[in-house]
Amino acid sequence: MNEKGKLIVISGPSGSGKSTVVNKAIQGREDMCFSTSVTTRSPRPGEVDGKDYFFIDPQRFQEMVERDELLEHAQYVAHSYGTPRAFVEQKLNEGLNVILDIEVQGARQVREKKKDAVLVFIVPPSLDELRRRLVNRGTDAPDVIEARLQRASEELKETELYDYLIINDDLETAAREFTSILTAEHCKVPHRIHLLKDF
Amino acid sequence: MNEKGKLIVISGPSGSGKSTVVNKAIQGREDMCFSTSVTTRSPRPGEVDGKDYFFIDPQRFQEMVERDELLEHAQYVAHSYGTPRAFVEQKLNEGLNVILDIEVQGARQVREKKKDAVLVFIVPPSLDELRRRLVNRGTDAPDVIEARLQRASEELKETELYDYLIINDDLETAAREFTSILTAEHCKVPHRIHLLKDF
Repeated sequence: MNEKGKLIVISGPSGSGKSTVVNKAIQGREDMCFSTSVTTRSPRPGEVDGKDYFFIDPQRFQEMVERDELLEHAQYVAHSYGTPRAFVEQKLNEGLNVILDIEVQGARQVREKKKDAVLVFIVPPSLDELRRRLVNRGTDAPDVIEARLQRASEELKETELYDYLIINDDLETAAREFTSILTAEHCKVPHRIHLLKDF
Repeated sequence: MNEKGKLIVISGPSGSGKSTVVNKAIQGREDMCFSTSVTTRSPRPGEVDGKDYFFIDPQRFQEMVERDELLEHAQYVAHSYGTPRAFVEQKLNEGLNVILDIEVQGARQVREKKKDAVLVFIVPPSLDELRRRLVNRGTDAPDVIEARLQRASEELKETELYDYLIINDDLETAAREFTSILTAEHCKVPHRIHLLKDF
C-alpha cells in the first residue's frame, strides 16, 4: 500500500452509540482495525491473548509506562490498561487505519504523544435522548443512570479537545460522517503530498 | 438552517479535470453554489449581470479593492476580476457552501483574508497523463500544451498552501473525496460545537 494508515481516537458518553456508529461505518472494510490494549487483569474465559488483549503482569506494565511504550494508559478498579505504541505503529505502517475507543483522559494523552492522531467525539442528540436510551437499555438502576448522565455532562465540556464532533441523531448520517472524516483525513496535504513525487 | 456554509476554494492545473470532479460531487445538492465574480470586462452576448458576473466599471473595482471588499482579485489581459466578500458571506449565512474556482495566487489571498476557508487542490495523476489529456482535448497547439505543462509543474510547487489534495485518477473516487471533505469540514468541532448548547 502507498498510504500509511491514520490513528482514529473515538470517545463519547456511555449511551452515545459510538460503537454502533463505528461498526456500521467500517463494516466490510479491510483497511480498518481496532487497537489491542495491554492489561494487567487476568483473561476471562474465552479471551485470547493478542486478540482481545495483550495480558501482561504489573511489572511489565510499569516498564512500558517508564519506557514510554504506551500511547495512553489508565487504571480501572484494580487493573491497568494501555495502548501499546509499537502495535499501533505496526498497523499504521501496514496501511491500516487503527481505531482506539478510549475515554477523554486517554484521548488527551494520545493528543500529546501523537500529533497526527484524529480525535472524534460522538455524542447523543441531547441529554434527554441519552436518558431515554439508558432507560430503554434496561441494564442500569435509576441512580446509575443519573450518575452516567452527570458524567456525560462533564465529558461534553471536553469536546474542544477533539477534531471532529458527530451528533448521533440518525445512525446512517453518523456513520456516513465517520467514513467521510476518514476519507478527508487521507486527502490532507501532509498525508498525501509524497504521492506527487512522481511529477 | 442551523449550520453556516463553508467556503471551498478549488484550484488545479488546466486539464486536471477539477470542474468535472466538482460538478459531479455537487450534482443535485441544494446546499452548494458557485461564487459570482465581479469583473471590469463587458458582458458577452447572453451573459447576465449578477448571474455570470457582476459587471462593474474600473472605478468601482478600484473602490472595492481599497475598501477590502474583495476576498481576492487578479488581472487577466486588460481586465480585472475579483470575488466580492459580501456576496460570499451572504451565501454562507444562508447555509450554502460556496465554491470558488480560482488560481493559486487568488487562493493565497483567500487564505489570508478568510482563515476558515477550505482549500482543495485537484491534480491529474501525472504530468504524462496531463499531456495525454491536453493532446486528446485537441484545442491547444503543441507549444501551448508545453506551456500548460510547464505552468502545471510550477503550480504543483504550491500544493502546501492547500488543506487537501485530490489526485484525479478516477472520477468517481475524486468526486467522493470532494464530498467527504465537505462533510468532514462540517463535522469539525469549531464549526459544530454551538449545536451542543442545548445540552
